[in-house]
Amino acid sequence: MKKHNFSAGPCILPQEVFQKASEAVIEYNNEGLSLLEISHRSKSFVDIMEKARYLALELLGLEGKGYKALFLQGGASTQFLMVALNLLEKRAAYLNTGTWSDKAIKEAKIYDDILEVASSKDAGYNYIPKGFEIPSDHDYFHCTSNNTIYGTQMKSFPKSPIPVACDMSSDIFSRQLDFTQFDIIYAGAQKNIGPAGTTLVVVKEDVLGKVSRKIPSMMDYKVHISKSSMFNTPPVFSIYTSMLNLEWLKNLGGIKAIEEINEMKARVMYSEIDLNPLFKGYAAKEDRSNMNATFNLINEDLKETFETMLKEAGISGLSGHRSVGGYRASMYNAMPLDSVKALVEVMSELELKA
Amino acid sequence: MKKHNFSAGPCILPQEVFQKASEAVIEYNNEGLSLLEISHRSKSFVDIMEKARYLALELLGLEGKGYKALFLQGGASTQFLMVALNLLEKRAAYLNTGTWSDKAIKEAKIYDDILEVASSKDAGYNYIPKGFEIPSDHDYFHCTSNNTIYGTQMKSFPKSPIPVACDMSSDIFSRQLDFTQFDIIYAGAQKNIGPAGTTLVVVKEDVLGKVSRKIPSMMDYKVHISKSSMFNTPPVFSIYTSMLNLEWLKNLGGIKAIEEINEMKARVMYSEIDLNPLFKGYAAKEDRSNMNATFNLINEDLKETFETMLKEAGISGLSGHRSVGGYRASMYNAMPLDSVKALVEVMSELELKA
Repeated sequence: MKKHNFSAGPCILPQEVFQKASEAVIEYNNEGLSLLEISHRSKSFVDIMEKARYLALELLGLEGKGYKALFLQGGASTQFLMVALNLLEKRAAYLNTGTWSDKAIKEAKIYDDILEVASSKDAGYNYIPKGFEIPSDHDYFHCTSNNTIYGTQMKSFPKSPIPVACDMSSDIFSRQLDFTQFDIIYAGAQKNIGPAGTTLVVVKEDVLGKVSRKIPSMMDYKVHISKSSMFNTPPVFSIYTSMLNLEWLKNLGGIKAIEEINEMKARVMYSEIDLNPLFKGYAAKEDRSNMNATFNLINEDLKETFETMLKEAGISGLSGHRSVGGYRASMYNAMPLDSVKALVEVMSELELKA
Repeated sequence: MKKHNFSAGPCILPQEVFQKASEAVIEYNNEGLSLLEISHRSKSFVDIMEKARYLALELLGLEGKGYKALFLQGGASTQFLMVALNLLEKRAAYLNTGTWSDKAIKEAKIYDDILEVASSKDAGYNYIPKGFEIPSDHDYFHCTSNNTIYGTQMKSFPKSPIPVACDMSSDIFSRQLDFTQFDIIYAGAQKNIGPAGTTLVVVKEDVLGKVSRKIPSMMDYKVHISKSSMFNTPPVFSIYTSMLNLEWLKNLGGIKAIEEINEMKARVMYSEIDLNPLFKGYAAKEDRSNMNATFNLINEDLKETFETMLKEAGISGLSGHRSVGGYRASMYNAMPLDSVKALVEVMSELELKA
């Protein structure tokens, strides 16, 4: 039985993507070779890479606007470092909305001093700070658009007098935004892009080349851009599968179409959390994430019953992050509304039982 | 028709590995989930990671000898940087045997001065320099065991009074060596380990922690060791497939068994290159690689005929690297002897025709 997979990432992808990726591992494109054994310099793979890069920019509405898309390795954790190496000359401004923001700040501090413009750390990161100032004499402003662990999401972004770098690992391609307000967008693939193993980086070229340090080749956005994202052997399978997934999204109608579905899933989920007296939500209502709904059982005595019922309904991956506990329903792009309904049904049944 | 794939990497892997990897993309281990959508913190994936790490050490004979195996991202190109960041305090000694050595030197030079103990650059890297001294007052010695582009291979390694870091990207797991003579071994997966997208790093723990710089988390071997190679989301599919491939090698009889097969393939290949008057080898005979045989047509007029014959025989991936031209037959672990025989047959036929 196929499960309802609420895993926070790596996470569900569309079944047709799994199917095509699986077939390519046996033979790609009737070439008599597995996708895994073709040269990354072959026309076949260069076409895949170029299509993936194009689709990323097209879906974000950034094609032809001075941006380049790269498919790199090392996850968002490597981007914490690369953003600082490529942009940080004197001082940078960071918004601290969770563990991942905090880690980004820690890595950047190796290179220079960092200003935290605001933080919700003292409140267990259960809301998004607002009304802060971004100083115009800093090199760039960094923020995290969605906080997987706490289930918060930035619903709007502050006007910034300096370049903006945004970690969109857990909500890229899930909602319409004016993406031109960002200069660097990065995201580990393993939520809305594809399988783990590649990281999408979208860079506005004109923010580069302004720091005085010597940047190691693998850390240098300019090097990767000049080599069309093929400075060294790329993660072939992860990029191919990401390309399939971006194609799926485009065929569905792009970000506009998926946003409607994501909003519907979130409505169904949060209604249950709010109306069911056995549960309470973790995040401040106005900052609730459409990707990750975090909630707790009010009466912990029901834990075992609830989790047995979840298991019987084929629901998996619902445990909250080890740092906050409780439950987390991750509802990324590929999650069907029916899976959310299946979860909500179990929550209602528990109410009837209790 | 399945091709004879002589690609230099990404390259051929065993058919049974392709088969199992393909199945796991649909469903892993009867869990009702694709391998691509399971959490990397699940027992299922932690078991895969631990098995892959164990197999790597076991096959190299390094289990229980103070070494740790890591499956990271970013390729050997990122290791050029990480070796320097983790070991380079004052000065390091490098052997320059090809483009990849040269790049490793270039990246390390960002951090401090580098001594080139010897180089075959002026001879187009067609041999391995010998008889050089490794100074005892340097931090470490770095070398490249096999040079894919030129088809040369270090047949023995100099005694070193300082720690040794070795890039074994293109011949790891292909031959028996006393691996305890190395302190850091690294290798991009896409030759003898698995598909592109992960990098095996084997580190002797006692060489770490001796530099004074602050190392960024993702670049720090100690951080990755302390998190059991799971500091951040690992490249799940590439690691699983690498685990399958290392399992295949173990079942075959390990490095001892594959070394015999590799020597047989190399003998068949080099015999033809030497006996067929139409071809000449590129690399110095004593330094010839058992992984990559490089050769040229003496009479370029036969190029078109030869390449048509290759195509008809289903032989692919034989073009030499763009920097040296000619031909390169890569005969990694998974390459069957029959494929080498098929190539040799075409070369003999060409001799009869010409």
